[in-house]
Amino acid sequence: RLLLNHPVAELIAVTSRQFAGKTLAEVFPRFAGRTKAGQLRFSDSKPEKISSAAEFIFLALPHGVSSGVAKVFLDKGLRVIDLSADFRLRDPAIYKEFYGDDHLAPELLKEAVYGLAERYRTQIADARLVACPGCYPTSILLPLLPLVREKVVLTNSIVINSLSGVSGAGRKVEADYLFAECNESARPYGIPKHRHLSEIEQALTAEAGEEVKVQFVPHLVPMNRGIISTMVMDVAADVDESEIEAVYKESYKKDPFVRLLGNSALPDTKNVAGTNFIDMSWRMDPRTDRLILTSAIDNLVKGTSGQAIQCLNLMCGYPETAGLW
Amino acid sequence: RLLLNHPVAELIAVTSRQFAGKTLAEVFPRFAGRTKAGQLRFSDSKPEKISSAAEFIFLALPHGVSSGVAKVFLDKGLRVIDLSADFRLRDPAIYKEFYGDDHLAPELLKEAVYGLAERYRTQIADARLVACPGCYPTSILLPLLPLVREKVVLTNSIVINSLSGVSGAGRKVEADYLFAECNESARPYGIPKHRHLSEIEQALTAEAGEEVKVQFVPHLVPMNRGIISTMVMDVAADVDESEIEAVYKESYKKDPFVRLLGNSALPDTKNVAGTNFIDMSWRMDPRTDRLILTSAIDNLVKGTSGQAIQCLNLMCGYPETAGLW
Amino acid sequence: RLLLNHPVAELIAVTSRQFAGKTLAEVFPRFAGRTKAGQLRFSDSKPEKISSAAEFIFLALPHGVSSGVAKVFLDKGLRVIDLSADFRLRDPAIYKEFYGDDHLAPELLKEAVYGLAERYRTQIADARLVACPGCYPTSILLPLLPLVREKVVLTNSIVINSLSGVSGAGRKVEADYLFAECNESARPYGIPKHRHLSEIEQALTAEAGEEVKVQFVPHLVPMNRGIISTMVMDVAADVDESEIEAVYKESYKKDPFVRLLGNSALPDTKNVAGTNFIDMSWRMDPRTDRLILTSAIDNLVKGTSGQAIQCLNLMCGYPETAGLW
Amino acid sequence: RLLLNHPVAELIAVTSRQFAGKTLAEVFPRFAGRTKAGQLRFSDSKPEKISSAAEFIFLALPHGVSSGVAKVFLDKGLRVIDLSADFRLRDPAIYKEFYGDDHLAPELLKEAVYGLAERYRTQIADARLVACPGCYPTSILLPLLPLVREKVVLTNSIVINSLSGVSGAGRKVEADYLFAECNESARPYGIPKHRHLSEIEQALTAEAGEEVKVQFVPHLVPMNRGIISTMVMDVAADVDESEIEAVYKESYKKDPFVRLLGNSALPDTKNVAGTNFIDMSWRMDPRTDRLILTSAIDNLVKGTSGQAIQCLNLMCGYPETAGLW
Repeated sequence: RLLLNHPVAELIAVTSRQFAGKTLAEVFPRFAGRTKAGQLRFSDSKPEKISSAAEFIFLALPHGVSSGVAKVFLDKGLRVIDLSADFRLRDPAIYKEFYGDDHLAPELLKEAVYGLAERYRTQIADARLVACPGCYPTSILLPLLPLVREKVVLTNSIVINSLSGVSGAGRKVEADYLFAECNESARPYGIPKHRHLSEIEQALTAEAGEEVKVQFVPHLVPMNRGIISTMVMDVAADVDESEIEAVYKESYKKDPFVRLLGNSALPDTKNVAGTNFIDMSWRMDPRTDRLILTSAIDNLVKGTSGQAIQCLNLMCGYPETAGLW
Repeated sequence: RLLLNHPVAELIAVTSRQFAGKTLAEVFPRFAGRTKAGQLRFSDSKPEKISSAAEFIFLALPHGVSSGVAKVFLDKGLRVIDLSADFRLRDPAIYKEFYGDDHLAPELLKEAVYGLAERYRTQIADARLVACPGCYPTSILLPLLPLVREKVVLTNSIVINSLSGVSGAGRKVEADYLFAECNESARPYGIPKHRHLSEIEQALTAEAGEEVKVQFVPHLVPMNRGIISTMVMDVAADVDESEIEAVYKESYKKDPFVRLLGNSALPDTKNVAGTNFIDMSWRMDPRTDRLILTSAIDNLVKGTSGQAIQCLNLMCGYPETAGLW
Repeated sequence: RLLLNHPVAELIAVTSRQFAGKTLAEVFPRFAGRTKAGQLRFSDSKPEKISSAAEFIFLALPHGVSSGVAKVFLDKGLRVIDLSADFRLRDPAIYKEFYGDDHLAPELLKEAVYGLAERYRTQIADARLVACPGCYPTSILLPLLPLVREKVVLTNSIVINSLSGVSGAGRKVEADYLFAECNESARPYGIPKHRHLSEIEQALTAEAGEEVKVQFVPHLVPMNRGIISTMVMDVAADVDESEIEAVYKESYKKDPFVRLLGNSALPDTKNVAGTNFIDMSWRMDPRTDRLILTSAIDNLVKGTSGQAIQCLNLMCGYPETAGLW
Repeated sequence: RLLLNHPVAELIAVTSRQFAGKTLAEVFPRFAGRTKAGQLRFSDSKPEKISSAAEFIFLALPHGVSSGVAKVFLDKGLRVIDLSADFRLRDPAIYKEFYGDDHLAPELLKEAVYGLAERYRTQIADARLVACPGCYPTSILLPLLPLVREKVVLTNSIVINSLSGVSGAGRKVEADYLFAECNESARPYGIPKHRHLSEIEQALTAEAGEEVKVQFVPHLVPMNRGIISTMVMDVAADVDESEIEAVYKESYKKDPFVRLLGNSALPDTKNVAGTNFIDMSWRMDPRTDRLILTSAIDNLVKGTSGQAIQCLNLMCGYPETAGLW
């Protein structure tokens, strides 16, 4: 959807084994009626055969697969925007710990840039290989990074609870994600060690300059889109709400997709649905002296594909918001 | 529904100003077809006039109203099961702090028994006035009380996140609870000081023998029924999962409505929907040495009316599960 | 659920290949905490081996499978309540037309009784083999049969639209029934010849004494349970609402699960959810002289398993409502 | 949303009594972050005072109110696009029959153009006053008008069933539209004479050149957006699917928002959600010789505001799709 509507970038090829030969519009009837969606057909070409006219490729493949094909495209001179987990971690040992397999292209891990645009804007602009963050990490790192960097919170006290709509599970055809199993159901899962912990802690550790471990509990709730993350933590001595606010205002003063809600309004997934925004609030609890952060994103946009387009815009020198308003 | 189906208790009167003159079946068409629902009419009688044949009365009134009428019924010799917040707190000052008004019957607060059946079974059996716990507190206290009592967790470290279905807001006709405002929406609210904190901390403090303050963040998610509570905390030195399990097994060995899921299964609101069960899990995170508890209840049953019936059963000497299986 | 709660019938065996060896409670955690659910284990025994202590067997198998095993049980002296489509049709040719395969036990079709309790109560009581109606046919035939029998409507004019919750598709693990494909989606399907047409027309034809063909369009809507059927038709000369009402009141005067809403109230699936009731309304449109019937059932209860229990009650001489209130 | 994103039209004023003084972004937090949404404040100015810089005004007022203020704007030289029912009907007597009150500006009814762009494109382009069609009528008339005009269907046989998401009720704060009353609920309503019948029949009658009466039964289903309409009717002698297809292809060959699905695919509200498209299918039932039409629109876009923008584009000579892709 985002590429079909992009004002500058042109979509010239799409690939799929399952849907090879069909047009975009046939596979996704919601796109019918748009000229390009009726013309562009999925091909099942091998990476080597994909149109040499392309300058960029988006890889939306399972982890363990992206790492096997990225190099082919890089070698052909394409720049790669990867939406899998394969290039998010710097350390192949941690990749193996969390994803279970040896990494297929460890030599690329150093080069890959973590595609959190608000934090790594400059690096993304020059990157050959961008690893788009996971949906949970996006909703968690944007609120946490500035506070960790400025050392206003105690990093060993961070407890994170997240709520995700069901599309977060992708389009997996499993009984757990059937309508009647998800509707009227809320449930925690992935306790105690969800895979996204690895990239959350890697980014926080880098920002803090010391090892950070956090508590993270994700939940599935019955809606299509959206993530809420609620983060509770102790603050450094004498830190108050005004200091938190000052850090955020300074950190995100030029970021078109960060909306700072302040200390009274609270985020709601419906306010970010279909958009690339992240909504963030902060509030000190005077009873406990803890800080409570909350954030909302659309897991399919800011949490995945919107963020990927944001990276594309940076890499191409387009306006950062092109195709994303 | 529960009283219409109860094998022993007989429903002899229902009151409502709004629906006065109408039968139960007219107001709630789902009950049509049951003889009693077609016969019993809502009356708007003053408390003084309500059938003297009654032995028990359930008060499902807003806070600040129950406290005004409970005494009338007690003076007539009825036993009162109150579903509002009015008799849950022992200290009228805390009541005023959290609910904003002076308590109308502070002399009854000492006598009132907190209707958490698994914990106060004996006291409930003999009570004239039972204050049924709120829905969030039920889902939170049943997992926490035994651990606090046995001092296996550090009480100043408890962070609670809860997810509630929309019926938790009652039947309030406000824009916030319209279908299109709740569907496809997840949102935190009540930060940092939700009213239920008062009874949660009162019960934990009593159980710990020292003041306990917790962090509590409720969220609204798009389903009709159900609460998930996820609690993270530090444990006392040398406590491990087997000790947690032992505490739970001992504490709840005779409780028909407590289902201990252990350290691998996780609760899901759909497994408790329409029932009086609470499902509870526990899990140590070896990375952080924190304990993660999760629980699920149906907020309308174990969280409200089912628990009220459970109290009635105890007060009458009926089997605790009567009308609740 | 219904058999675990039944006051007389005792569940003594459950079978499943997929879940063999597991208890009911393990497979369906919502049943945990009930003694029997924790004891009863799924077996994958062949039909020949299933407990000879059984008097009744419920077959909840795909069509084309039930017909292959029913005879084994009948020969062992069990009475069979079949929830598939296999024994609903009298004519094996029509079975083949709608279900695609030759019927495996055509000799049983004559003996099988259509388990629509309100219409075939006497025959069900004496049956060895009961074929429970489909969910759509139940919601459609109960409103239509009396009017067709009394010849107050013109049978060639009947247009039926039905709306079903997603559980109507069973627990099929297909992409079409994933949460994100069903939520925020309403869609017609099965046009023009849904399989349930065969049993709808068979029953109407038998009742009318002449061939009846109807128009039937089912739709899928995003909820777990429930069917709404809306039926529009011409009436015979001089028929008015009072005559419709008289036919219904006479036909259903002794039926505990039929709730006649009359000409002003309208059914709502939430009023029948979890119950064995059918709610029915009728209304003449003075602008078009057509009659509009609407009905609501819970597809999983009155539309499937509740109706099966109702048949069991009739077959055993239990009160018709046993286990179903 | 649509006007904020429109490439040509500029939004210069918004009015509201309830929200006077607040910015668009404050009232609708989903629009925060857009410059204009943060600047534009709701005013409660009287119609006479509204910015004289405006060339167009959209009236989104209750019926009975629009008709009172439209003339003020017309007299000031603005062109009016009305989203209420007030200018849809030609005959004030029919308005009174369906809406209960005398029309406040009957002299404008002759001038008003019915804003169904695909049918009245030329007239809309020149209109001073456009009456945007209701959501149900849009989903019903686009499939029916060409067939009625070409006399390939029998107009006295048309039976229409529609399913609407809850946003179709607007933002009315009534108990009927609370989340817990709509979720897990499907229900017919408005039987037998929904207000939209008046404009449906007016348009069909005009197109047929003879009086047309149809049967129309709307239903509410638990989703935010979308309408499905299913229409069943007899066809004229010798009409077959290929003739239906030919009529549609000719009628809609230049319409960017009409997607003809043909006789095998079926519409799904999720494929049109957020778009201005209408998806339409047709199918003859060889068993009954009836034609079955189905359509899907987003009631909030093609059914309301998208169609209004489409009219604006026509009135201004912009590309018809401006701001609507």
